[in-house]
Parts: sequence; C-alpha cells; structure tokens
Amino acid sequence: MIITATEADGSQIQAITAKAGVFSQEEVDCVVELWEDYLSVGSETCGYNFIVDRDGDQVLGYACYGPRSLTAGAFDLYWIAVDPDARRNGVGHGLLLASEEAARTIGGTMLIAETSGTPHYEPTRKFYINMGYTSEAIIKDFYSAGDDLLIFIKRF
Amino acid sequence: MIITATEADGSQIQAITAKAGVFSQEEVDCVVELWEDYLSVGSETCGYNFIVDRDGDQVLGYACYGPRSLTAGAFDLYWIAVDPDARRNGVGHGLLLASEEAARTIGGTMLIAETSGTPHYEPTRKFYINMGYTSEAIIKDFYSAGDDLLIFIKRF
Repeated sequence: MIITATEADGSQIQAITAKAGVFSQEEVDCVVELWEDYLSVGSETCGYNFIVDRDGDQVLGYACYGPRSLTAGAFDLYWIAVDPDARRNGVGHGLLLASEEAARTIGGTMLIAETSGTPHYEPTRKFYINMGYTSEAIIKDFYSAGDDLLIFIKRF
Repeated sequence: MIITATEADGSQIQAITAKAGVFSQEEVDCVVELWEDYLSVGSETCGYNFIVDRDGDQVLGYACYGPRSLTAGAFDLYWIAVDPDARRNGVGHGLLLASEEAARTIGGTMLIAETSGTPHYEPTRKFYINMGYTSEAIIKDFYSAGDDLLIFIKRF
C-alpha cells in the first residue's frame, strides 16, 4: 500500500537507500538530511514529500518529491528506491505513478527526474523511459568527468 | 572592491534585489532566506557564498554562488544583481569573474547560471553570453507556461 511516510519508516528508508546499490554514502546522507527536514518541519515547509510502499511493517520502497522553488508547476523527483528483495513487483512503478498523481493533484505540470549517464544507471534510465519520461537535456560531465546529468521529464 | 559579504551588507543586498527590476517578491524572499542561512551557519555548512562589490559603505552589487550537492565540481550561480544606479560600470562583470575565480580555486569545473527565456531576461542572457557562457540546455515551460529555463554554463 502506498501511503505518506511516517517517523517509523525512517530506518527502513535509510536501509533501502544504502542497499539499493547505486547510491554513494554522500547520497545516503543526503536522503537522511531531507528525511530529518520532513520529520521536523513537515513537507509543506521543507518541500520534501516522502511516500512509502508498505506491506505490513515492511517498507518495500519509497519516493521523495516536491515542488521546485520559484516555478509555477515544476516538481522534482528527488529520490526513488526499491528494496532489492522486492524488485520486479511493480513497486517502483507504483511509487512513481503515485508521485506523479500527487504532483498533478496540487497543480504540478511536470515531474523532473535527474539521473546519471553512466552504465551503472542504465536500468534507472530504462525505468524512466518505460514510465513515459523523455530525456530533455544533458549536461556533460556534470557529476564528474565522464558522468553526465540527464534530465528526464514527464509532462502532465 | 569585491569582498566576502558581511552582516552589515544584508539590507543593501535585499534592497538591490528588489530594485533590480527582474525579481518577483518570492525571489526577493528567497535571497533573504539564503542570506539568513549564510549568516547563521556560514557558507561552508549552507553552501551559499555571498560576495559584494562595495564602494565605501555602499554595496553596488552582489553575487551568490556555491557547490552543487552530489557533484565533484559543478557550481551554481544562485543570484547576481547590480544596483540600477551602478550599472554600465562593469560591476556585474567583476562579480561574475570573482565568482568563477572562487569556484575554480576550490576545485570547480563549471559555473551554472539558470535563467529565464522571456524577453524580460534578454539583457541577462546577453550578459552571460558576453561573459563566455553557453546555453547548454532548455527546459520548455519550466517556470510557467511560456517561460522556459535556460541553463547557461561556463566550463573552466
């Protein structure tokens, strides 16, 4: 069941990010930082919304999205990750659709997913393409030399 | 003289942003928010560096830049504004060069300046082009319908 994340989900969100196999320690720390903002001041103030796909007490995956400051309707998908043990069950698909739906409901006109152009992220890029996203821009060597930024967008 | 901004510069930075004629109230509020972060926790922690061009006690213009999280060397130019009464004296030119130099000194590989594609921002786009920036990506209708995002980049 996909629902708004609550405090008890924090440790599993962090564990899934670490287990996902694509994120660096710096990226895991970044998720924790957004999560702490989300818990302490709430999504309205910090702009980060966390949703989880939960099966009983077990978190199968999560997504974090929010409105881009100073835009009328652009939303960012900050993070999406699925427990490796729960993959190929449509968890990521469901979380992404729920993020899009939530953004659209509050006036969103597009959801932006930034990702890397390295071979490591090929499954991620395929996932976005399968979900109807288009790579609208590439910034060469953005993350580091040889590691480009790809900006995938789904417009509503 | 271009130097690191200190607390006393705050009110003039805010006034210049409001007077610049291109920023909305929401954007002025955003500058104030970054400035408060900068004063309270310091640029190392918050990631926002403010520099000013100061003539005696008068601030002629300012720039705010910082490293993009999760990248090895990408820097963002968050804001740059010059007092309308001090324009055409190379103040913006000097502030942008100083931002580039500062970024390069601490390992920056590029400075990214995001701006709008509306006619209102034509002088801003010309300024970046004259300063050696290239429009590397466009996201249509990013800010709002008809208001595109242009991503200008100077690579070092």
